Amino acid sequence: MKTKLFSALILSANCLIARAQTNQPADDWKPATSNLPGQQYPQVNSEGRVRARIQAPQAQNVQLDISGIKFPMTKDTNGFWTGDLPPQDQGNHYYGFAVDGAEVPDPNGSFIFGSGAWRTDVEIPASDQDFYALKNVPHGQLREIHYFGKTSNADRHCFVYTPPGYDKNPNKRYPVLYLLHGYNENETGWGHQGRASFIMDNLIAEGKVTPFIIVMENNSIATRPGFVPRGAPPDGGPRRGNGRGMFDFSGFEHALMGDVIPFIDANFRTIADQRHRALAGFSMGGMQTHAIALAHLDRFAYIGIFSGGSIATNEITDMAAFKKKIKLVFVSYGSRELDPANRRGPFTGDPKAEVAGLKAAGVHCVFYESPNTAHEWQTWRRSLHEFAPLLFKN
Amino acid sequence: MKTKLFSALILSANCLIARAQTNQPADDWKPATSNLPGQQYPQVNSEGRVRARIQAPQAQNVQLDISGIKFPMTKDTNGFWTGDLPPQDQGNHYYGFAVDGAEVPDPNGSFIFGSGAWRTDVEIPASDQDFYALKNVPHGQLREIHYFGKTSNADRHCFVYTPPGYDKNPNKRYPVLYLLHGYNENETGWGHQGRASFIMDNLIAEGKVTPFIIVMENNSIATRPGFVPRGAPPDGGPRRGNGRGMFDFSGFEHALMGDVIPFIDANFRTIADQRHRALAGFSMGGMQTHAIALAHLDRFAYIGIFSGGSIATNEITDMAAFKKKIKLVFVSYGSRELDPANRRGPFTGDPKAEVAGLKAAGVHCVFYESPNTAHEWQTWRRSLHEFAPLLFKN
Repeated sequence: MKTKLFSALILSANCLIARAQTNQPADDWKPATSNLPGQQYPQVNSEGRVRARIQAPQAQNVQLDISGIKFPMTKDTNGFWTGDLPPQDQGNHYYGFAVDGAEVPDPNGSFIFGSGAWRTDVEIPASDQDFYALKNVPHGQLREIHYFGKTSNADRHCFVYTPPGYDKNPNKRYPVLYLLHGYNENETGWGHQGRASFIMDNLIAEGKVTPFIIVMENNSIATRPGFVPRGAPPDGGPRRGNGRGMFDFSGFEHALMGDVIPFIDANFRTIADQRHRALAGFSMGGMQTHAIALAHLDRFAYIGIFSGGSIATNEITDMAAFKKKIKLVFVSYGSRELDPANRRGPFTGDPKAEVAGLKAAGVHCVFYESPNTAHEWQTWRRSLHEFAPLLFKN
Repeated sequence: MKTKLFSALILSANCLIARAQTNQPADDWKPATSNLPGQQYPQVNSEGRVRARIQAPQAQNVQLDISGIKFPMTKDTNGFWTGDLPPQDQGNHYYGFAVDGAEVPDPNGSFIFGSGAWRTDVEIPASDQDFYALKNVPHGQLREIHYFGKTSNADRHCFVYTPPGYDKNPNKRYPVLYLLHGYNENETGWGHQGRASFIMDNLIAEGKVTPFIIVMENNSIATRPGFVPRGAPPDGGPRRGNGRGMFDFSGFEHALMGDVIPFIDANFRTIADQRHRALAGFSMGGMQTHAIALAHLDRFAYIGIFSGGSIATNEITDMAAFKKKIKLVFVSYGSRELDPANRRGPFTGDPKAEVAGLKAAGVHCVFYESPNTAHEWQTWRRSLHEFAPLLFKN
């Protein structure tokens, strides 16, 4: 089932399910910051456990579901079922309930699109959550854009982050980052659970980045309506080989070149050249970045691949030209993804070694490892936070 | 329970539940246009019935829930439960499932915020749906804005519609409509289920409106965190009397005057005077419009009250001043709301007679009746569509 293909990758918490189930939970539960305003559940504790609750008086069995792994819940005399998830990584996690077999979101949570459906997410407090917090600093705008794409022959929909001051400086032009999402995610992810706007607002307030525009498209929608990735192996599992061959990215590649970039350059005050254009993404979006950037060195000067492979020196046919054009190759992973014992991603090879190879060849290359996170949004929030300050500075 | 107070009003379809349950449904079911892409359910037929489905193999009883009224579903051998709603009004309706007593959204539908929670909605095709359809016309932008409000002493969040061409004409300034939502709705409603952007884009493309900015704030959030409407009668039902005295709107009034309007005027290219500022809203937002506009005749020249009362001549202390300042009073209702036998709203009096009284006194006044709709979004979409062309033209 295609919506399940990457579920184990994109749903988070995948590495931690088994640990720390033996002890009693710390009794310092608080409503999650992500809850619907006023809702007391789900709650989180200092260990990163999640306690969720739903009223289902006639149900025989209600379970708490994360990444398709189900945990028991128990019913009280008022018909409320309560259950805990074991400690989760810091950051954002998708979860839901199975009510007598019906898989449904938690009506009390925060609703986001992820893993192929509208779901509930819960926010686990993080030691570094300050960098993506809403603060009293100048804010950019997240603009919802509809336009018709002639190349796609389709209505297109994207979100565009414009930095603080964009409207106040009508003669100023900005570089652009095209920021892609993963498989079974969509154009809402970076702006909602990815916290891209707050990450940028805070970095800009700290003077750490050159302000730029971010474009968040639906990079699953290609030139044809009904486009679906093809070439998935018969067992439904991910194909190895750095992602190459697993998907057909040509549809999105044509749309990006024929519709998205021309529309953005025509409708926003961009600096419309290669030196001021970056391409990045996570998971499938990292694989797309890899494929599209290598095929269009004349279009992008900065490349960011988050949990989506890396670039091997033998993929670069003209190293001199590559070094002249590409100002940065940024590769990141969650530390748990890099542990061979825990590896769940579709990416083989050794990204650290590949980055070292690029460095040895003289490419400006940065490898970032997100501590104690897996194939999940906290890795990608941190990746954007590390990547953004490196852009458009050389 | 406060989230239930207005449910019967804000959830739609409230007048039609009982009719047409006797006949066999027309067998021309199609997936609703509002579904999650690729999902076959919910479906709608030519009678406006809704057929929804959910897999719940171990459930004993699954019901289809609209406005708290539950309809039976039946289970097939694969564990899928299917059930129908009776014919609904054209337009948007919120619904959900009750799975062995657990009230949950339909994971296949479109998720919106309404009636105090994240819910599923379904779109019933309408004879006039063209006016709010996504078309290949120049589109405005729906901008998500965060800012800190000193008067509120709180982070504020709104959506701002800027018309097509806003960025291309950096010296052009625009009038502004402040457009309010109803009780238990929030700042996302007009942009999502209200289709405000598409309504405006289409009217502008047809040359029928003077382009203007629309500001969609959370008009439940007031100067104090935890603000809740007060004064609801002990039985939880709506208090009569044109809404006056039912809520305390002073918190939002202070925020609108102290935070919202100053922020918008400072950060968007508005024409920042009374003649170029309108205030409108539906249900509770109509009551707020009524209360705030009458108290601030120096701030708003156009008043729109959708399903939220009207203005009686005896409320106007200085009719000569009122007529000089107020260029339009627009009052609208769904036809089913006006039928005394079906009346469910909190509004007494006769809005048509009140409007006739204003007209007789020489006020420029328009009464609009939405055919065959109730206290629901189709009434308010149509109201905006009728109201917008009348703004900023005299």
